[in-house]
Amino acid sequence: MSYSAPLNDMMFVLEDLCDLDGVSKLPGLEDATPDMISAILEEAGKFAGQVLAPLNVIGDQKGLTLTDGKVGTPEGWAAAYHQLVEMGWNSPTTDPEHGGMGLPAVVNACIQEMFNGANTAFQLCSLLTQGAIEAIEGYAEDSLKETYLPKLVTGEWTGTMNLTEPQAGSDLAAIRSKAEPQGDHYLVSGQKIYITYGEHDMAENIIHLVLARLPDAPAGVKGISLFVVPKFLVNADGSLGERNDVRCVSIEHKLGIHASPTCTLAFGDNGGATGYLVGEPNKGLQYMFAMMNSARLGVGLQGVGIAEHATQHAINYAMERKQGGTPEGAEATIMGHPDIRRMLGLMKARTEAARVIAYRAARSLDYAHRATDADEKARHQRRVDLLIPIAKGWSTELGIENASLGVQVHGGMGYVEETGAAQHLRDARITTIYEGTTGIQALDLVGRKIQRDGGVAAKELVADMRASAKALGEQTSAHADWAMLCATIMDAADTVEDLTDWLLAQNGSEPLAGAVTILECFGICLGAWAMGDAAISAATRLEQSRSPAHAQAKLKIVHFYMKNVLPKAASLSATVKGGAGSVLDLTAADFGVEA
Amino acid sequence: MSYSAPLNDMMFVLEDLCDLDGVSKLPGLEDATPDMISAILEEAGKFAGQVLAPLNVIGDQKGLTLTDGKVGTPEGWAAAYHQLVEMGWNSPTTDPEHGGMGLPAVVNACIQEMFNGANTAFQLCSLLTQGAIEAIEGYAEDSLKETYLPKLVTGEWTGTMNLTEPQAGSDLAAIRSKAEPQGDHYLVSGQKIYITYGEHDMAENIIHLVLARLPDAPAGVKGISLFVVPKFLVNADGSLGERNDVRCVSIEHKLGIHASPTCTLAFGDNGGATGYLVGEPNKGLQYMFAMMNSARLGVGLQGVGIAEHATQHAINYAMERKQGGTPEGAEATIMGHPDIRRMLGLMKARTEAARVIAYRAARSLDYAHRATDADEKARHQRRVDLLIPIAKGWSTELGIENASLGVQVHGGMGYVEETGAAQHLRDARITTIYEGTTGIQALDLVGRKIQRDGGVAAKELVADMRASAKALGEQTSAHADWAMLCATIMDAADTVEDLTDWLLAQNGSEPLAGAVTILECFGICLGAWAMGDAAISAATRLEQSRSPAHAQAKLKIVHFYMKNVLPKAASLSATVKGGAGSVLDLTAADFGVEA
Repeated sequence: MSYSAPLNDMMFVLEDLCDLDGVSKLPGLEDATPDMISAILEEAGKFAGQVLAPLNVIGDQKGLTLTDGKVGTPEGWAAAYHQLVEMGWNSPTTDPEHGGMGLPAVVNACIQEMFNGANTAFQLCSLLTQGAIEAIEGYAEDSLKETYLPKLVTGEWTGTMNLTEPQAGSDLAAIRSKAEPQGDHYLVSGQKIYITYGEHDMAENIIHLVLARLPDAPAGVKGISLFVVPKFLVNADGSLGERNDVRCVSIEHKLGIHASPTCTLAFGDNGGATGYLVGEPNKGLQYMFAMMNSARLGVGLQGVGIAEHATQHAINYAMERKQGGTPEGAEATIMGHPDIRRMLGLMKARTEAARVIAYRAARSLDYAHRATDADEKARHQRRVDLLIPIAKGWSTELGIENASLGVQVHGGMGYVEETGAAQHLRDARITTIYEGTTGIQALDLVGRKIQRDGGVAAKELVADMRASAKALGEQTSAHADWAMLCATIMDAADTVEDLTDWLLAQNGSEPLAGAVTILECFGICLGAWAMGDAAISAATRLEQSRSPAHAQAKLKIVHFYMKNVLPKAASLSATVKGGAGSVLDLTAADFGVEA
Repeated sequence: MSYSAPLNDMMFVLEDLCDLDGVSKLPGLEDATPDMISAILEEAGKFAGQVLAPLNVIGDQKGLTLTDGKVGTPEGWAAAYHQLVEMGWNSPTTDPEHGGMGLPAVVNACIQEMFNGANTAFQLCSLLTQGAIEAIEGYAEDSLKETYLPKLVTGEWTGTMNLTEPQAGSDLAAIRSKAEPQGDHYLVSGQKIYITYGEHDMAENIIHLVLARLPDAPAGVKGISLFVVPKFLVNADGSLGERNDVRCVSIEHKLGIHASPTCTLAFGDNGGATGYLVGEPNKGLQYMFAMMNSARLGVGLQGVGIAEHATQHAINYAMERKQGGTPEGAEATIMGHPDIRRMLGLMKARTEAARVIAYRAARSLDYAHRATDADEKARHQRRVDLLIPIAKGWSTELGIENASLGVQVHGGMGYVEETGAAQHLRDARITTIYEGTTGIQALDLVGRKIQRDGGVAAKELVADMRASAKALGEQTSAHADWAMLCATIMDAADTVEDLTDWLLAQNGSEPLAGAVTILECFGICLGAWAMGDAAISAATRLEQSRSPAHAQAKLKIVHFYMKNVLPKAASLSATVKGGAGSVLDLTAADFGVEA
């Protein structure tokens, strides 16, 4: 079960579909030349393939131990983490002056895809640390930054996000954890569940970011504050002090990501855990939301990464598995069966499309942070905001679908755990749930990202899609088949525009009923746009004899996508517009009837 | 995690959509009156809900042991099996004169759905025994029947089907196991894998049905014979004799159905296992194919059963899980969220549609076996042959989809194993693989069942669909919304006819590339037909105040189906006709390119 980072496709997407040249002209990113990036990705790919991937299976099989509140990770896990820290892979985008590598977000997207694809359970640790870094970097006062940031950036300390409580899942308004003022700090108490890497043995300290209520806080979402609660208190000289009043009382027995500890943490059982307020009181949720784009993109890249890994796994199997024969009597592999190729085609086409969407979201993150022109900055921020729920929601759903198809390609062997195909499915299954379920992503898309801005960001996107279609349409003399590509992308743009207009015209709950279907439809249509652009680039590369095998395969998979993936968009659009009413008509009573 | 047999819906489908009255007029089924059937199903439902469902979770968690070739089932497993045998549930359709209950196949479909839905891993034992019964009953000489049938029918002995070998999965031509003549019997040797309940501790003897080659057998599928190989030899007086030369060398560690032993069996390590030829030499595969309809229907009913169980599980959770509040500040359950109802609606609508398709296949089995009119018999056999791959393929695929949606409805709780939602997904995942993968079902559908008979069976089905649509269209004065139902079912019929014509017009490999997509499309369209008929019956029941709550909910779910499930058929049809070429264009080289 080897994993090979898809470096050719990553560089293709970076250079040709995300304009890496343009990104590297942004202030602070001048070192991000294609040559330098290519070398970095090659190194990251080695780490993913040679270190993380082999541990993926071990982690799944061995799982975790919990003894006296201490979580033990599987053999090899801590050593690999130390290697990651030493090589500087923990926080690739952080400014070099804070100890990071200062890479563009779009390049980090490649690294995150690789590491998550090779070993989702492992990489979750850094993903959560990244969230803690952003919270502290963005909102904490300087003394907290000085104390905690440097070691979080290197990864010597890891971070966690403590949001969920038993009664407060997707609805954080119900949070009950408390924080009592006590001189220069607070005493935090309460129980948090589903805390990823809430306790482990890979780093000397764990910095918990905790949502809790101050004594005088208003009810609901406007009364939630954010606190830093370290596992070990930190002395003035930076050395570790006494153990804080927080402990891991249990870890979950989960379907997948077995080696990623999902902890229940008890804060303040012995009087209160020492915590420090981040930013202003009662703004905790706002700070959390500000960090969500990168965390959600990170999970979207888990979707892409698992989709890629499952695809490679299935391709390798199909190349080797002998079954049946040729008409001449020779043994043949199952790759010869059209249905196997259909499944592999679906896996490959959707993975490559989702990769482009996620990387383009990351590229816009770079522009939104660094562009000097205010309009350009704002336009990219709108694009980020629009793309993130799609990159998260669609990539993770298709990560599951790909993993399930991967099992199917393996046949009976796929159902036997030692093959490893089933692990992808088990691991992928969480990605549509955490960091906001697909339903939450979809509400974000239709409500905040489309209805609230009057469809501005969506219409900008439609214009870009039409420009891509037009570019294809202008070259039909050289490429006769591009007339079809042009027409299908025009259709996809029409579908996105039509659903945007539909959303803007609704006054009732129909958008809520249709939201997830709209998200999938947008994902498929944006994938078609990405594939159209890919066709142009691949044709150019072919003419220039640059990576011709990759370019040739890309052209075929573009056609496959248009004919085998895109048609679903029309039915999804019809379902939204025709079906939302019958969703709303279903009441609890209809489900409660004794069947 | 309770399971409640959907008795109301089962009786509705039996009486109104499968004409139970007509079935009970068939020779030998005269006792199958609705009252008697209803009483039987109620008893079966109790066994499913009270005995099998509680063991489902235990079986998943405890799994199996293998010690010195002996497989230990989880605590309670053997006792429940003995109860099943005592109550006569092992082989409900077998003729009473052979010790069975003599129930119609369509009634047995309900029982199989219940038992499989409550506990798939458990019921697999009887499903395999059923196959052994049919093989012996249909093809073995009388002495073998007398020796083995009675105890297989009661379930005192269980049966297995030994087809697969490491190099021979879907392609049985590659079978290498051998049988050497030795006086009145044969010495069988070879290794078989994936043998369900190949070894266990629930019954005193296990009767293996084994495919193997005679010394002079021709190569390929025409040289395979079928043998009975008992675990313990049977003495002339029927008592158990010495242990035969077959042993379980390993069991698989699987994604799901943990308590169903999947064995590797070694035959003949000590000179040869005593076996008895079933029927004529070299006809083994033909005999296997003849049994496939009921085995495949059985697995299809696993799909329906798991789909139903997962739906109930998710509904129960959504009814109880508090999250968020109403505008008035009261706590609300997640059932209030439109996206939760969309997911539950999809689960419920597809389950109910798939149930009708599977039961109608079973109903036609009854007619094909028992009708006195030769034309009617033949027509129903064609219908069985056409429906089986759809009932198997579509029901199992949507069993997986439903189980996955069930996890999603549970949110983070769904990913934690103790909730039980994830078990449905893990258990369901095998059903699209064994007894012929979905790809194999689809090849059967497009090749044997449509192209080979020139589309006769498919066109008969289209005519039935149009008759249902017409019946709806004739009542639009009383039911204004039935104009829509009529039109959508007409569309569904057109789609089935159009794809049938497309298939008949193809000469190349396009049907192989489009087969799975066609199968899904047919499933969805036939589901619409079933739902249309259900609307007519439900409206009649409402007028008569018979089960009005069920009828009311049915009418809503029919509308939901037409607007939220059926639209996909159009995109599938477009994918088949437009996309098959681009599937065939993909070669191994395209997948082998270093990405």
